[in-house]
Amino acid sequence: MNDKILLDHGSGGLATRQLIEDVFLEHLDNPVLSRMEDSAILDLPQGKVAFTTDSFVIDPIFFPGGDIGSLSVHGTVNDLAMQGAKPRYLSLGLIIEEGLELETLKRVAASIGQAAKVAGVLIAAADTKVVGKGQADKIFINTSGIGVVPERIDLGIQRARPGDVVIVSGSIGDHGAAILLARSGLPFHAEIKSDSAPLADLVHQALSAVEPDAIRLFRDATRGGVATVLNEIALASGVEIEIDEGEIPVDPDVGMVCELLGLDPLYLANEGKCVAVVSPEGASRVLEAMRGTSVGRAARIIGEVKEAKGGPRVKLVTRVGGSRIVPILSGEPLPRIC
Amino acid sequence: MNDKILLDHGSGGLATRQLIEDVFLEHLDNPVLSRMEDSAILDLPQGKVAFTTDSFVIDPIFFPGGDIGSLSVHGTVNDLAMQGAKPRYLSLGLIIEEGLELETLKRVAASIGQAAKVAGVLIAAADTKVVGKGQADKIFINTSGIGVVPERIDLGIQRARPGDVVIVSGSIGDHGAAILLARSGLPFHAEIKSDSAPLADLVHQALSAVEPDAIRLFRDATRGGVATVLNEIALASGVEIEIDEGEIPVDPDVGMVCELLGLDPLYLANEGKCVAVVSPEGASRVLEAMRGTSVGRAARIIGEVKEAKGGPRVKLVTRVGGSRIVPILSGEPLPRIC
Repeated sequence: MNDKILLDHGSGGLATRQLIEDVFLEHLDNPVLSRMEDSAILDLPQGKVAFTTDSFVIDPIFFPGGDIGSLSVHGTVNDLAMQGAKPRYLSLGLIIEEGLELETLKRVAASIGQAAKVAGVLIAAADTKVVGKGQADKIFINTSGIGVVPERIDLGIQRARPGDVVIVSGSIGDHGAAILLARSGLPFHAEIKSDSAPLADLVHQALSAVEPDAIRLFRDATRGGVATVLNEIALASGVEIEIDEGEIPVDPDVGMVCELLGLDPLYLANEGKCVAVVSPEGASRVLEAMRGTSVGRAARIIGEVKEAKGGPRVKLVTRVGGSRIVPILSGEPLPRIC
Repeated sequence: MNDKILLDHGSGGLATRQLIEDVFLEHLDNPVLSRMEDSAILDLPQGKVAFTTDSFVIDPIFFPGGDIGSLSVHGTVNDLAMQGAKPRYLSLGLIIEEGLELETLKRVAASIGQAAKVAGVLIAAADTKVVGKGQADKIFINTSGIGVVPERIDLGIQRARPGDVVIVSGSIGDHGAAILLARSGLPFHAEIKSDSAPLADLVHQALSAVEPDAIRLFRDATRGGVATVLNEIALASGVEIEIDEGEIPVDPDVGMVCELLGLDPLYLANEGKCVAVVSPEGASRVLEAMRGTSVGRAARIIGEVKEAKGGPRVKLVTRVGGSRIVPILSGEPLPRIC
């Protein structure tokens, strides 16, 4: 077998079949996928189903703490988890540039398989397309996901209300800083790792710790970071959100990179962190439940929801006691961050 | 607003929100999508659910008979329909090259909206990524789909058995020939149109016409054409499939293009045609039901399933009474055909 991806590998003929057998079935095989029909047949329990999609175009495709394969599993699993759903099935749509090393594709497939296993999801459907050299950049991955929403769960970005507590599940900006550093080639004393990780268990533990109604919403702080997510919540709920700079967990190395480069960690992407808005009564139990999970050990209350007297907005109380508005930006500081 | 897509449009910030509001909500708005949460919440009836994914990288993005937008709806709707499912929800993952004309994106979005309406599916979830100029070719679209499988439906590629009848739902090779011609710039007396169309109604009508068990399987003949599909069926069912060259419907213009260019229509892609394998008792009623639909008027019996005495394979009886094996090819003759 050739050691590079050829146009023929995306043709739907023998070469595609060979590629699937050689690269994907080893890592992704399961009874649903291996039927190799036009669509997978799933048995879902009755009730509400969450459905989401995300494409991943991250550059570089391998980075400290993860790669485009694991990221594409975590990203979609997390989008399902944010609605309280238990992630069950993923689909996988690959667009590959002709000439990609087969070895690279195998590493990505192995990483997808491993991440799916850890997150407890099955790859139920897959599709591979190959485009000519220069018509894509190495590999793009779309994952769509299906999850099952337990009864009585009703989370929503419009549900924050004055008095609620704002929790972040851990230190912020790790993913953005890791990619920035990997891309820049800057010499730096430490390697910063992406926080790419599945959040479904953290969400499940938090929801189990209190009456379902006590948690208003979860939102993972991906592109645009915590600042963007908080602004979206403020807008959708018609509230002001006040956060306390001194309470926001930032890894010292991430803080240093941000200072060197003039970036604000509040706007850097995360791939394993979420914001939760919780009733004041439920806050301590939710915090404790999050801290009991491997990805939530550094969870922290960072602020509070207030009435939107000056309109929906996000206000930061600085370490020295001043305050400033945290605006919604036009864009992420970094393209192809996920 | 700028008239070209910028990197910022894929950043997840204000520019992304603006793009979604200006381009997508106009054509794709519905109560599920407009919640704009991390995932859509669907109410599905109890029972089996079909799930599939497909990425579309077709070049050119506009072609006679369709465009990448309508194609990305039809392709996934058809993959669901082939399992007997009623298509219900699609997700939409866009990867856009920086610099794409906004007008182009609007045309594609309108086409997606129109095709979804005709096919009776809702766009439930969407994601937009923008990559730098030269890192993708104009626009790639992933659609994943969810459909509901009615009770007692159990179609499968391994279910063909000797004596069964092979039906094709209409003339073959139209999509492949249309794209080939559009790309080649060859002068030709006629415009050949892609057959891109949804097949869910045709499948539904066929299934309603007979006892569910009488239809063994449907398979849409996309990349690799009818020849590839028949080979897959022969292999999976362990049978020989004999088709009759004189019975295979080919549009005269498509036939002429194939002759000029030395291509076999059996291997050309279709995007609105399927193969059905049906019990001999059910064949005439299925054929009649298919012919009663707008996309199946030219449906025809093209062959028969036989015992695989010489191993699983596809045999063509030629117009002059000879016979030859129709092999499975390594690849599609044309890259980026869908």
